[in-house]
Amino acid sequence: MFCFFLLNQKTIFVNNYKICYMKTFFLFFLLFCTLSAFSEDGYDLWLRYAPVENVNLQKTYRNQVKSIAFNANTPTLEAAKSELKTGLSKMLGFQPEFAEITNNTGNLIIGLPDNFEVIKENTGTEELNDISREGFILRQIENNNLIITSNTEIGLLYGVFRFLQIVQQELPLSGLNVVDSPKTQVRILNHWDNLNRTVERGYAGFSLWDWFRLPDVIDPRYIDYARANASIGINGTALTNVNANAQILTPVYLEKVKALADVFRPYGIKVYLTARFSAPIELDNLPVADPLDPLVQEWWKKKAAEIYSYIPDFGGFLVKADSEGQPGPHNYNRNHAEGANMLADAVAPYGGIVMWRAFVYDQHVPEDRTKQAYNEFMPVDGEFRENVILQVKNGPLDFQPREPFHPLFGGMEKTNIMPEFQITQEYLGFSTHLVYLAPLYEECLQSDTWTKGEGSTVAKAIDGSLFGQKLTGMAGVSNIGTDRNWTGHPFGQANWYAFGRLAWNPYLGSRKIADEWIKMTFTKNHAFVEPVTEMMLTSRETAVNYMTPLGLHHIMAAGHHHGPGPWVDGRRPDWTAVYYHRATSEEIGFDRTPGGSNAVGQYHQPVADKFGNIETCPEEYLLWFHRVPWDYRLKSGNTLWDEMAFRYNQGVNEALAMQESWNLLADYVDGQRFKYVQSLLEIQTKEAAWWRDACLLYFQTFSNMPIPDGVEKPVKTLEYFMGINELYMPGHH
Amino acid sequence: MFCFFLLNQKTIFVNNYKICYMKTFFLFFLLFCTLSAFSEDGYDLWLRYAPVENVNLQKTYRNQVKSIAFNANTPTLEAAKSELKTGLSKMLGFQPEFAEITNNTGNLIIGLPDNFEVIKENTGTEELNDISREGFILRQIENNNLIITSNTEIGLLYGVFRFLQIVQQELPLSGLNVVDSPKTQVRILNHWDNLNRTVERGYAGFSLWDWFRLPDVIDPRYIDYARANASIGINGTALTNVNANAQILTPVYLEKVKALADVFRPYGIKVYLTARFSAPIELDNLPVADPLDPLVQEWWKKKAAEIYSYIPDFGGFLVKADSEGQPGPHNYNRNHAEGANMLADAVAPYGGIVMWRAFVYDQHVPEDRTKQAYNEFMPVDGEFRENVILQVKNGPLDFQPREPFHPLFGGMEKTNIMPEFQITQEYLGFSTHLVYLAPLYEECLQSDTWTKGEGSTVAKAIDGSLFGQKLTGMAGVSNIGTDRNWTGHPFGQANWYAFGRLAWNPYLGSRKIADEWIKMTFTKNHAFVEPVTEMMLTSRETAVNYMTPLGLHHIMAAGHHHGPGPWVDGRRPDWTAVYYHRATSEEIGFDRTPGGSNAVGQYHQPVADKFGNIETCPEEYLLWFHRVPWDYRLKSGNTLWDEMAFRYNQGVNEALAMQESWNLLADYVDGQRFKYVQSLLEIQTKEAAWWRDACLLYFQTFSNMPIPDGVEKPVKTLEYFMGINELYMPGHH
Repeated sequence: MFCFFLLNQKTIFVNNYKICYMKTFFLFFLLFCTLSAFSEDGYDLWLRYAPVENVNLQKTYRNQVKSIAFNANTPTLEAAKSELKTGLSKMLGFQPEFAEITNNTGNLIIGLPDNFEVIKENTGTEELNDISREGFILRQIENNNLIITSNTEIGLLYGVFRFLQIVQQELPLSGLNVVDSPKTQVRILNHWDNLNRTVERGYAGFSLWDWFRLPDVIDPRYIDYARANASIGINGTALTNVNANAQILTPVYLEKVKALADVFRPYGIKVYLTARFSAPIELDNLPVADPLDPLVQEWWKKKAAEIYSYIPDFGGFLVKADSEGQPGPHNYNRNHAEGANMLADAVAPYGGIVMWRAFVYDQHVPEDRTKQAYNEFMPVDGEFRENVILQVKNGPLDFQPREPFHPLFGGMEKTNIMPEFQITQEYLGFSTHLVYLAPLYEECLQSDTWTKGEGSTVAKAIDGSLFGQKLTGMAGVSNIGTDRNWTGHPFGQANWYAFGRLAWNPYLGSRKIADEWIKMTFTKNHAFVEPVTEMMLTSRETAVNYMTPLGLHHIMAAGHHHGPGPWVDGRRPDWTAVYYHRATSEEIGFDRTPGGSNAVGQYHQPVADKFGNIETCPEEYLLWFHRVPWDYRLKSGNTLWDEMAFRYNQGVNEALAMQESWNLLADYVDGQRFKYVQSLLEIQTKEAAWWRDACLLYFQTFSNMPIPDGVEKPVKTLEYFMGINELYMPGHH
Repeated sequence: MFCFFLLNQKTIFVNNYKICYMKTFFLFFLLFCTLSAFSEDGYDLWLRYAPVENVNLQKTYRNQVKSIAFNANTPTLEAAKSELKTGLSKMLGFQPEFAEITNNTGNLIIGLPDNFEVIKENTGTEELNDISREGFILRQIENNNLIITSNTEIGLLYGVFRFLQIVQQELPLSGLNVVDSPKTQVRILNHWDNLNRTVERGYAGFSLWDWFRLPDVIDPRYIDYARANASIGINGTALTNVNANAQILTPVYLEKVKALADVFRPYGIKVYLTARFSAPIELDNLPVADPLDPLVQEWWKKKAAEIYSYIPDFGGFLVKADSEGQPGPHNYNRNHAEGANMLADAVAPYGGIVMWRAFVYDQHVPEDRTKQAYNEFMPVDGEFRENVILQVKNGPLDFQPREPFHPLFGGMEKTNIMPEFQITQEYLGFSTHLVYLAPLYEECLQSDTWTKGEGSTVAKAIDGSLFGQKLTGMAGVSNIGTDRNWTGHPFGQANWYAFGRLAWNPYLGSRKIADEWIKMTFTKNHAFVEPVTEMMLTSRETAVNYMTPLGLHHIMAAGHHHGPGPWVDGRRPDWTAVYYHRATSEEIGFDRTPGGSNAVGQYHQPVADKFGNIETCPEEYLLWFHRVPWDYRLKSGNTLWDEMAFRYNQGVNEALAMQESWNLLADYVDGQRFKYVQSLLEIQTKEAAWWRDACLLYFQTFSNMPIPDGVEKPVKTLEYFMGINELYMPGHH
């Protein structure tokens, strides 16, 4: 970064004075380049603010922001101003003049409509109403000056970040007219972080929250975390694991949570905590945690009051109840609405909400696991308080490389619903595989539920436009940890970024998001942007191919979920692989048609029929919904077995192609990140082949068919692969 | 750092051309300063290479190293050259010319005596013999040129590091004549790192070793780890916890260990592993792990061969056996020599060694715990193989704030012995207390064992000069983790540094080491160096005062050892506090005189008598060796109770004084490190008061005497302090 910057300095010197001794300067320049190589460790994320590469454009920018009118007299506005200063100085190589005045001068004028007459004159009441409290307007006005405005300080902060992103992407400011506001309200990261700093399903080191040193020590990283989130509109963070620990609700920890909340507040980020349903028993020896017991209700009301005494803008609770061993209302024969409403009543006086997870299933229920959440929640549709929002995973199973959309989307019409996407790659290669997840998120959001006829997409079902919910949101299970580059894989940053962008606007396209991210994170050079965009856009399908083609699912290794484990059997059935693929010598797949578990019946028509008919079911969901004979002919004309083999092999070839593609890009990226990604792509290619070989050898024991020509033959044996037992895996404690 | 550097550039421009537009330049300069503030996070350790502050001296240095003759054609020499380039360019603001030639030109000539005639002419055979294989000579020769030479490449690397340190400290190169070599052979860090990346007694994040991504991904941090260690002469690293996991000896992990060994090798650092004594049973189902069983011996020989096939220069094993639940030779009625020798025979063909820990005690042995190691090992003195070295903790208990030296030093005359110091602050406030440990190490090393009359110091007993051991060394239990600043507390870096310097030369003084470290880590400015040196030098005594004055020991909270727990009782006695302080309403202390456990009998005369007599026993060991009535008059004239209260109070006042002292130093240190240390000193002061109040209230229940005037009266109650139950503490998993 410094090299570019200095190169720009050189240019200025030369242009203005043409007298500096070039050779000496160049030597320093080279020296700086060498030294600066150290800093490209990915820590800066998409906030790198690299110097503008187009020198003419940089000059134009400089003129356009030469003087800035911005009265920053609150923590939020100070944060915005500080970001603007840092960003512009790094990108433009000069420091604009800041006027702390309220007249209407300045090339760039930033404020609420009431702050500047010129802003009021150049914005309409209606558009200001439309952007509500978090939106913003960026506009070039008649005299060619620029304005950034909003109804709130947080909106101004978001506007400043967007403005900086426009410059980062080297887009023209002339004619600028951006009116944007978020389409969902609660845009939140879920950190599955434990109090001992391990992170469930975390593959980027350990928890950022250094509970031991909090509240006294404020790691500067907390601020950078807030900056990164605010820059993409994320406005909430649930700090703790959904497999919850009641201790977080005790004063010792609330003081620490308060310290984090104080850091995040100026950035518009509220903190949320996971509430362990049995906390009244564990912390205060109440005999029960029955949500209808007045003592229990009172306990939670007092606890809420206590929390709000530390954190007046506490966001609320995230709850995993009656699932995977977590306590919940079922223990007292109460339903989920009764459980959620009790907590909702406790936080309602303070404006808090309850995010209640729909990820509920029970091994003792003799029903297809993918059907259980729907069965559980549909009967209580309409029974939840207004400040409850149901948090539903994108698919009905569990964050697989591919799942059909969850039937609760478009199913529950009278309940607030927010999707839960997984950013951390639990079933998707951990942090060592490059898998750009925006296409997965987009696929879900653009799925048509047909609830109110064609076009009833999941996006519309969750942003309030289809059912008119008053409370909307989107949750992403964080992939962030203490790794210097935050996400382990440098490209994992793109998934954090994409989640934030889609939470803000669920209608954005994966390509656009990738384009933004690449330009801000690496370079605007087409020779880099184009191949990397292609790598990213295809990477999810690549992972599906080498892991779970044709609708296969849940065939990962047991427990830690790293690598193939189609042979996993013998524990509780819904945690095995064989429960899901059901391979025999005749056929493979899970029959979820009306003749089988009838999971398709949870979808509206014509979706149910389309999924339920082997002829019309999209082949990417084939084995999800159907049992299919090994010699069944697919649209390609291949038998199922051959097609499966081809897909696995294709996945490996595509991983290899990514690797080869990256290897050509050394000139466009700093050495440290180049090498790091290179090593990871090597791992990915190796592991893609591991997936292919292990799965084909295993499924071949059922199909009894030869591996077709054109597919690389496994060198190792099935026994070898079944003998692999990886220990001490990250994210699995 | 960058600001200074650019300031230097400015100077050059002005001097040489006097034409650059100062205002513009200064603006950039300020801009860089702002930006560079980000980087002062402590990651650079004592290798910051800040620009030379004395401008005249900088000019002199530039002339002295204008051209450098250094043929770097091996990984070690390339590492040395790269360090030299980075260091000199950062400190001097220019890049010397490097000549890749073998003639004798160059202001600075670096090579083996055979490489350059001029080196051979200016060094003597005897001095070259004396420095053996790791020493070096730095010398200004007659024509004022400088030479760096050694018998080996590693010696050259060490010489280059020392040269850079001299420049960092802004010491003159004129008249330079340093002939130095290490006084011990194995200078090794012990990492108590588990395979899941938790670190036993680690307070600086988690393990640096990212086993999951190894061997493919080489974190650049591994290289910086090696650089830091090599810069102070550390030449070994035991990667894994002494509470050992046999899995590290399997091929999957050995491949990963090999990757680390490959990174460390150019820096002269060998890797060692902890060997779990029962590994043959656990890994290959042998029926026993009996060291005299030929099958077991054969297993270890094969295992050694396998390890050396991955890592030809593998250092050897570190073993904790028959202690705290670890398996060992006792399980088979064999002694420690028999256990150690079996492993030693396995690695001997490859030049490997075995470090066998003497930290052995057994709750079922009805003997003062501090006596057990001596009792166990003295009978087998002389029975260990030549490639075994006994690793003995500095004191006979367990890394307390203060202990008398271990009687095995000066006790075992026919066995190789290396001291084990703890760098991580298990019993010393974790990474939140500033406690400079060099005085603790020095106190031990300078203790006089009297084995061969006066002057038989521990230092001489372990460096071979007293007993002529062929194998010598020093081990430090690492305080390093994934925290960005490596050690959690910025001043924890000083303890790593001090350990390395003392392992190289056990006769160095704490003040000199502090002086070096401060100048390289912060600044050469006297206004900073002086008060900080004083803070550091007094900090250990301060910690003793507020934790365990007058010979108190092992009164920390149970398990995690954070904070006071003098009331701890009721588990196995040797893990309680009451076992050690034995307070009653009459007296307090552990009687280790001949009338008591007679631990003093393990020391030579006159040490035994001195310790054993309450009148001559140094007061800092008083309650370690004696039971003392509460009204006993100390040398101060105070009763024991009053003195104890004064010492506790003094500790708190001293902590407060450190805090106040630091608060005056904001101008001399970057904002990030200043604030971080400031927050930590706040914690330390708070916790010092916690220690004082809790201990005085507790011991008062025995003494029944009033807290004397001048000592702050506790506000909280003993019950409050006894009710504190800290959960999820770092380092305790």
